[in-house]
Amino acid sequence: MSSTNQNHKLCMIPGPVEFHEDVLDAMSTLSTSHVSPAFIPIFGESIELLRKVVLTAKGQPFVVAGSGTLGWDMVASNLVEPNEDVLVLNSGYFGDSFTTCLETYGGKVTQVKAPIGDKPSLQEISEMLKTKFFKVITITHVDTSTGVLSDVKSIAQRVKEQSPNTLVIVDGVCSVGVEEIRMDEWGLDLVMTASQKALGVPPGLSIVIASERAIETFKKRKTPVKSYYASWANWLPIMNAYEARKGAYFATPPVQLIYALNTSLKQITSVPLEKRFEQHKKVSKFVKDAIEELGLKMLPKSRDIAANGMTAVYYPESLTAVDLLPKVASNNIVIAGGLLKTIASKYFRIGHMGISVTEPDRKHIQDTVSALKISLKDLGYSANL
Amino acid sequence: MSSTNQNHKLCMIPGPVEFHEDVLDAMSTLSTSHVSPAFIPIFGESIELLRKVVLTAKGQPFVVAGSGTLGWDMVASNLVEPNEDVLVLNSGYFGDSFTTCLETYGGKVTQVKAPIGDKPSLQEISEMLKTKFFKVITITHVDTSTGVLSDVKSIAQRVKEQSPNTLVIVDGVCSVGVEEIRMDEWGLDLVMTASQKALGVPPGLSIVIASERAIETFKKRKTPVKSYYASWANWLPIMNAYEARKGAYFATPPVQLIYALNTSLKQITSVPLEKRFEQHKKVSKFVKDAIEELGLKMLPKSRDIAANGMTAVYYPESLTAVDLLPKVASNNIVIAGGLLKTIASKYFRIGHMGISVTEPDRKHIQDTVSALKISLKDLGYSANL
Repeated sequence: MSSTNQNHKLCMIPGPVEFHEDVLDAMSTLSTSHVSPAFIPIFGESIELLRKVVLTAKGQPFVVAGSGTLGWDMVASNLVEPNEDVLVLNSGYFGDSFTTCLETYGGKVTQVKAPIGDKPSLQEISEMLKTKFFKVITITHVDTSTGVLSDVKSIAQRVKEQSPNTLVIVDGVCSVGVEEIRMDEWGLDLVMTASQKALGVPPGLSIVIASERAIETFKKRKTPVKSYYASWANWLPIMNAYEARKGAYFATPPVQLIYALNTSLKQITSVPLEKRFEQHKKVSKFVKDAIEELGLKMLPKSRDIAANGMTAVYYPESLTAVDLLPKVASNNIVIAGGLLKTIASKYFRIGHMGISVTEPDRKHIQDTVSALKISLKDLGYSANL
Repeated sequence: MSSTNQNHKLCMIPGPVEFHEDVLDAMSTLSTSHVSPAFIPIFGESIELLRKVVLTAKGQPFVVAGSGTLGWDMVASNLVEPNEDVLVLNSGYFGDSFTTCLETYGGKVTQVKAPIGDKPSLQEISEMLKTKFFKVITITHVDTSTGVLSDVKSIAQRVKEQSPNTLVIVDGVCSVGVEEIRMDEWGLDLVMTASQKALGVPPGLSIVIASERAIETFKKRKTPVKSYYASWANWLPIMNAYEARKGAYFATPPVQLIYALNTSLKQITSVPLEKRFEQHKKVSKFVKDAIEELGLKMLPKSRDIAANGMTAVYYPESLTAVDLLPKVASNNIVIAGGLLKTIASKYFRIGHMGISVTEPDRKHIQDTVSALKISLKDLGYSANL
């Protein structure tokens, strides 16, 4: 399959995103031993480069074969012991699922759950932090189901003031590489993501970066970790070995995906991150302006809590998913349906992350907006067109 | 990177194996939504084709982003409840690790542990089955650390006779696609593998096929599954949906790896499996004959318990891993060191699975044996050369 395939429909969903040709080439790297002198430095360097993406000097990256979801198991099984209290800030589907995962491993979850399109307020969080000690607080930075953006910096600051011993966990699956994240400066204890979003690598890697404090917390556990595959006891020696440019074995790493990750991380870190954040903000504004000009309503209740890597939009009342998505696809653009169960059939989602944003010459964004306009018009939707 | 790269060193370790050009091409499939009409039938068909590889009509395949190791978590968390008895047949490193995984989830493990190079005997297994009821028995079909092959058919038959309610679990990571496995005919309840061995797909997929009885056992659990990412409660609806050619979401599947799996499974199932088993036996005999002609000693105590997809060999006393492996690599062949901790520095391992076996025109096997002979000679080892 060629990356210049003319029949290709652009994948403009909130992940998987479009991938750079060099990243896709790396995916077909010839078979290489996971402990060979060729591969070890590739893995080691990838671990180092991940620190740059979340701006941490000493955070400990984990790169493991799995979906992003596996990062929740890592948090729930390594950092929370049975019956310890966890505060989950819920701004959509992923807050619900993270809760289920934490409870599976014995965490006692309290949620601050926002109405659809909103996020928990600082005041609500403060009130809840007064009620008891939470070992861990989790923030979905961008809930991919709603496109709501949380203010991680302010929340982390509030937690430091009110409950400094609480670990601050950021689900950054739809934010790492898009939104500003300053792990050390903001005092975050863990940031997790997946390969297929703004990191620009095909799906199949769970990526977690843990602070020194998080690792210390893990090491001081009183009870054994209740997962095998997600246990840092198994993975920490492996990450340390590869970073020291030595091979080690717990489970065979996904060699080709790690070659692809290395390729993408080199691209990402070759440009100041600030520029990357700005580019995503600018493109997000362009898309959201276009949506508003079309007279369509977005899920997030206001622009200042809307994610910069995706846009979630209600269908016009006259249209449904059944109409719009195939029509847009017939114009060679794939966008996503809704994900939040209660309203899944009522909205759609557009992704704008990675090379579609940072390499404007590709015209992915313009093509997407054009396809949306044409499709709406073809379906008889006339407002503001 | 081109698959005709002249500088490529052949990866002749017991996984990852060498990959077919078409499989590597599929790895760089352009970004495709995991719920698109393009991808859904690819995933659905892959699930169906897996049944053919292990000869089952109604077994339930699971294809999940992860290393092969994740399959152990699936067994331990879905099929074993806390304090239930498990019998682990141990023929090397992987029996030890599977035990640790089972214990992590609360299983009470009894082992029948063979000396290095041997496997538990039918008599030992019979004796142990008399002592108590085991919910599950696990067999490492081929322990990749020792190259010892277990007789799954006979063990399964013995279990049916003595303890018909015991679930028979086969760790087939280094055997599926190499050794004869007749899941239905032999009454196996679960076969697990990984993508990067004889299935000929880059690492990153955990593949498990569970019998109807195993699924029923899972459904009748009295206690909740203690893993989130490995829980069949999350994955079963997804596998059912894709097989019914519908999209569904629990975690983003590794789209490119699944395209690659689909490509390889089509190749594998296009030829009678019996032919594939015979080819692997024939090549294994060729390699092992060559090893014996060199006067080298193999780990398995006899030919009839030696795996057909790999060969584990003691270094001549005058040589060590430090000498031989880089020398072989300088002859463009990568072989593997030892893995069993107590004797890791004393032996090496050669993989012979997949296209290196089924496509003899590639001359991978001859090149490997030649490189080994030349390297030994260069290092001054003269016996029988």
